[in-house]
Amino acid sequence: MTTRWDHLLLDATLATFVGDAPYGLIRQGALALHQGRIAWVGAREELPGEAAALAARVDYLNGAVVTPGLIDCHTHLVFGGDRSHEFDLRLNGASYEEIARAGGGIVSTVRATREASEDVLFEQSLPRAHALLADGVTTIEIKSGYGLDTATERRMLRVARRLGKALGITVRTTFLGLHALPPEFRDDRDAYVALVCDRMLPELAEEGLVDAVDAFCEGIGFTPAETRRVFDRATQLGLPVKLHAEQLSDLDGAALTASYGGLSADHLEYLSDSGIRAMAAAGTVAVLLPGAYYALRETKLPPIAGLREHHVPIAVATDCNPGTSPLLSLRLAASMACTLFRLTPEEALRGVTVNAAKALGFTDRGTLAEGQRADLAVWNVREPAELCYWIGGSHALRDIFLGGELLSPDS
Amino acid sequence: MTTRWDHLLLDATLATFVGDAPYGLIRQGALALHQGRIAWVGAREELPGEAAALAARVDYLNGAVVTPGLIDCHTHLVFGGDRSHEFDLRLNGASYEEIARAGGGIVSTVRATREASEDVLFEQSLPRAHALLADGVTTIEIKSGYGLDTATERRMLRVARRLGKALGITVRTTFLGLHALPPEFRDDRDAYVALVCDRMLPELAEEGLVDAVDAFCEGIGFTPAETRRVFDRATQLGLPVKLHAEQLSDLDGAALTASYGGLSADHLEYLSDSGIRAMAAAGTVAVLLPGAYYALRETKLPPIAGLREHHVPIAVATDCNPGTSPLLSLRLAASMACTLFRLTPEEALRGVTVNAAKALGFTDRGTLAEGQRADLAVWNVREPAELCYWIGGSHALRDIFLGGELLSPDS
Ligand SMILES: [Zn+2]
Ligand SMILES: [Zn+2]
Repeated sequence: MTTRWDHLLLDATLATFVGDAPYGLIRQGALALHQGRIAWVGAREELPGEAAALAARVDYLNGAVVTPGLIDCHTHLVFGGDRSHEFDLRLNGASYEEIARAGGGIVSTVRATREASEDVLFEQSLPRAHALLADGVTTIEIKSGYGLDTATERRMLRVARRLGKALGITVRTTFLGLHALPPEFRDDRDAYVALVCDRMLPELAEEGLVDAVDAFCEGIGFTPAETRRVFDRATQLGLPVKLHAEQLSDLDGAALTASYGGLSADHLEYLSDSGIRAMAAAGTVAVLLPGAYYALRETKLPPIAGLREHHVPIAVATDCNPGTSPLLSLRLAASMACTLFRLTPEEALRGVTVNAAKALGFTDRGTLAEGQRADLAVWNVREPAELCYWIGGSHALRDIFLGGELLSPDS
Repeated sequence: MTTRWDHLLLDATLATFVGDAPYGLIRQGALALHQGRIAWVGAREELPGEAAALAARVDYLNGAVVTPGLIDCHTHLVFGGDRSHEFDLRLNGASYEEIARAGGGIVSTVRATREASEDVLFEQSLPRAHALLADGVTTIEIKSGYGLDTATERRMLRVARRLGKALGITVRTTFLGLHALPPEFRDDRDAYVALVCDRMLPELAEEGLVDAVDAFCEGIGFTPAETRRVFDRATQLGLPVKLHAEQLSDLDGAALTASYGGLSADHLEYLSDSGIRAMAAAGTVAVLLPGAYYALRETKLPPIAGLREHHVPIAVATDCNPGTSPLLSLRLAASMACTLFRLTPEEALRGVTVNAAKALGFTDRGTLAEGQRADLAVWNVREPAELCYWIGGSHALRDIFLGGELLSPDS
């Protein structure tokens, strides 16, 4: 007897994120997987036949919540070195100046990343990617930006690709050459921007290492004019753009990004009303990063009400990075988005699924719908809101499916 | 050939919390376990002989950090029902009054706990205790207080004991009859306090279910006079006391607790200088609960500087509870204590080990020293500060030892 599907999940509480109903929820749901895709989703009673006759394997989930595999659309998780010592110093009263004098700050990560071989960088970054996966993440965006020279930026992006292969997850790489001014260009920022735009980006793009281009547009980062230069080059190369914008001040970076049809503008604590309108018009996703807000003990909230009013899609990400957000759980980021930013649990969960997919330009994931990639997370909870309600805890994830293949979270 | 010890761990970074050196750190350390106890601790080079000749089993940890098994000295993790719906409602704009009218709040937990059989309560609470264990916790204090009648308080305490047996961890039970006024006593609080002091506590203590006695001393809880009544009865019964004190206002509860030689006063955001002095004089531990501070978005900080100045021992706990702190990781609580309360990583880690032991009256755990119980956590990190630096992430724990027995964290 040939069955129709590879695998059928029954008695699931499906958070589909399709349609306008809360969570796109289907209770007593059924979900069929076939050849790595979702082949059927709906209420169990509408299944077109007997379960056992329909699928080669049938599993009963006892009401467990199933979501699309989570998507972390903003991370810097490939880096060398260890900044916990700096964290310790700061809490023991050292000032930022003292830490900088002791070789701390982003410069120390740049130094350690430059010194690390590709294998060392891979070994150091793997547990971080694994931690995200073990908490339900099946697609991760990873930025370069701690190399700030061609060889090290290349190494970071290659390690990002290797992480995806090693774990069987999808990795999207983002080139972030304009992350910080490297020490050797301290007195010639223009030359560095030229190097990034005219050499680094085209070369790395040519090598197939770049899926998108980002910059850190901020008083302490790069100017809007410099951002335009790298965005222009990205556009010439056919690469989508995104931006670290309006985190510490309003430089109108979100509107700039929208003017390039950018995928997303990220952080956004200081986003203005006109910035919101520009994003809404361009379909640029607002990526909120509550981990950095929390770790930096910020008090300025992103303009959630305005984003809602203008229907700007909101995503939530970990911003996993060694300095300002050493956050290793996207579920915790979603929880923080509720507690700190007052997103509803549904908004936060759409933010780590369907809207995070949008922020990466994906249309084949982020919802539970026929034809979508079969990246799924099965959770030890019975209500989707619990994924945001519980704070921490490592036993939330029950199973994960990567392209239809069942993986134990601890393998 | 007979060896001297059961098990020897080598190449460990030992955070012993013995002495005044930061973390009581020993690099290239060795730690021997024998018959459930720590038999030897020190630098590897001081080992009294050849490793292979000394122990039946030798493991090389490659620089991994070893801490005492963590101790969560304040939880309410046994409860019935699910409050995630209330969390969802609140973030969707419902007021506390609307939620109360919809049957929410602590009353809903009391109702669900009363309705749950012992087995149901056990099944619902087990994953929470397991989540704490999977993140390194080997000793947990669990309070009653959602029954508020003798039968249900008994059931909660029995479930707490069962959790300890089921997981092989140590559970300390605390009777918290004065947690909230049950609805049926709304018009006669005196009768409820009398029931608690004259019937419930003596009966449950007689049954061996009570290791300590706690109360919620607050404007919305019980008065200092009512607290005294239950503390007096506890003292008659030879039971130590502790208190939920100074969380929302200053009722001088910490000093009251100190006057009974109490183990700890917990929360303490509104603790006064005289309260600090009384705690210092009595040796009462200050238990800080950053999870509740975070979840309630409090802004009033506990008086850390004063606690330091007067050498009050500081502990940190999850306060795991369904309403104000659904926190399932003690490591995350320690991290929050750093980020939100500005404890140093060392203070936070002493707070979940040696000082948490003190808060529960234990002298046989919380440090790595000869003769201590062999409850250990082995971590996938190389510096103790990393345990506070990383936020979330489920792959920090590598191994756990319970009374000398090695347990995989995911078993
Ligand atoms: Zn970032
Ligand atoms: Zn409590």
